[in-house]
Amino acid sequence: MIDPVVQALIDALRGLPGVGPKSAQRMAYHLLQHDRGAAVRLSQSLLQAVDEIGHCERCHTFSRDRVCATCLDPARDPRLLCVVETPADQGALERSGSFRGLYFVLAGAVSPLDGIGVRDIGVGPLLTRASDGVVEEVVLATNFTADGEVTAHILTEQLRQRGLKVTRLARGVPVGSELEYVDLGTIAHALMDRR
Amino acid sequence: MIDPVVQALIDALRGLPGVGPKSAQRMAYHLLQHDRGAAVRLSQSLLQAVDEIGHCERCHTFSRDRVCATCLDPARDPRLLCVVETPADQGALERSGSFRGLYFVLAGAVSPLDGIGVRDIGVGPLLTRASDGVVEEVVLATNFTADGEVTAHILTEQLRQRGLKVTRLARGVPVGSELEYVDLGTIAHALMDRR
Repeated sequence: MIDPVVQALIDALRGLPGVGPKSAQRMAYHLLQHDRGAAVRLSQSLLQAVDEIGHCERCHTFSRDRVCATCLDPARDPRLLCVVETPADQGALERSGSFRGLYFVLAGAVSPLDGIGVRDIGVGPLLTRASDGVVEEVVLATNFTADGEVTAHILTEQLRQRGLKVTRLARGVPVGSELEYVDLGTIAHALMDRR
Repeated sequence: MIDPVVQALIDALRGLPGVGPKSAQRMAYHLLQHDRGAAVRLSQSLLQAVDEIGHCERCHTFSRDRVCATCLDPARDPRLLCVVETPADQGALERSGSFRGLYFVLAGAVSPLDGIGVRDIGVGPLLTRASDGVVEEVVLATNFTADGEVTAHILTEQLRQRGLKVTRLARGVPVGSELEYVDLGTIAHALMDRR
């Protein structure tokens, strides 16, 4: 008894990550019942973003321009290249305010179980980018998950073959945490990498 | 450092119920990185739904036509009118397959704490609809929450003044539940209303 147009909206909302059938129905009904303005705004923002936002041709982050502002910033050190899985990870590093080099954004991490290989995440373009003769050190900032670690491992081998210095973000005890509640793997790493 | 167009999309996604700043960013990045087709489909579905879906002028449920198919169905008993808070609640009743009367969909429930009164949820149109001379019994199927109960209480008074028979969905033990785990209020109601 749900109108096909409403059902189409519910189905489209399920395309959002983390939204199941119940949430999608709740969202659709909420928008139609209480906030049609928000629905129109969301529709316009989606179209505008899809139309205007592409990928920077140097670092592959989201950008409206051919080359993004970060890549064009002359104050950044072009000898340092930080590799992240997503623009969100790049944002987290930028907010820390402690990296002044350039970035390269992969399209996620390799995931053998999901059939996502090095080709799918853009390792080729990264190797080309890192071999420009200016980059000296590549900082691997993929996630510390199984997929992220595998990706870092693969990248380390391929980048070292090209004579580049490859480093990885330090593993250790998170700032503000009590040792009693830190997991054993983290403590073991923090002990090994003590300085 | 987030592009204003991407930020606008993130803000628009926060207009969806249950979506906070982190989820909104994750949704926006996912759509732009992995599923631009889903973004376009969602944009179109939103516009189409806002354009085409209005409210049935008799029962106020979502409808593309002036009067919805349920209200026009000659097989339904026009002497029975079931009052629900939302089209989703109406859907739940319909799926149970045990009501063959007509519906009236309020715009939610009264909520004194949020400043939502009888005027805001369309009690006036309900009273007009129920006083058409055909309706004999009004079944109150507002939720069994504090707001839903208050709404049912107000409606009972106003509908009885107009000489209508007013009933409420039965309170009791849910099908399939073990008494040991049913809350005491429900057991008390089930005892009182035993038959």
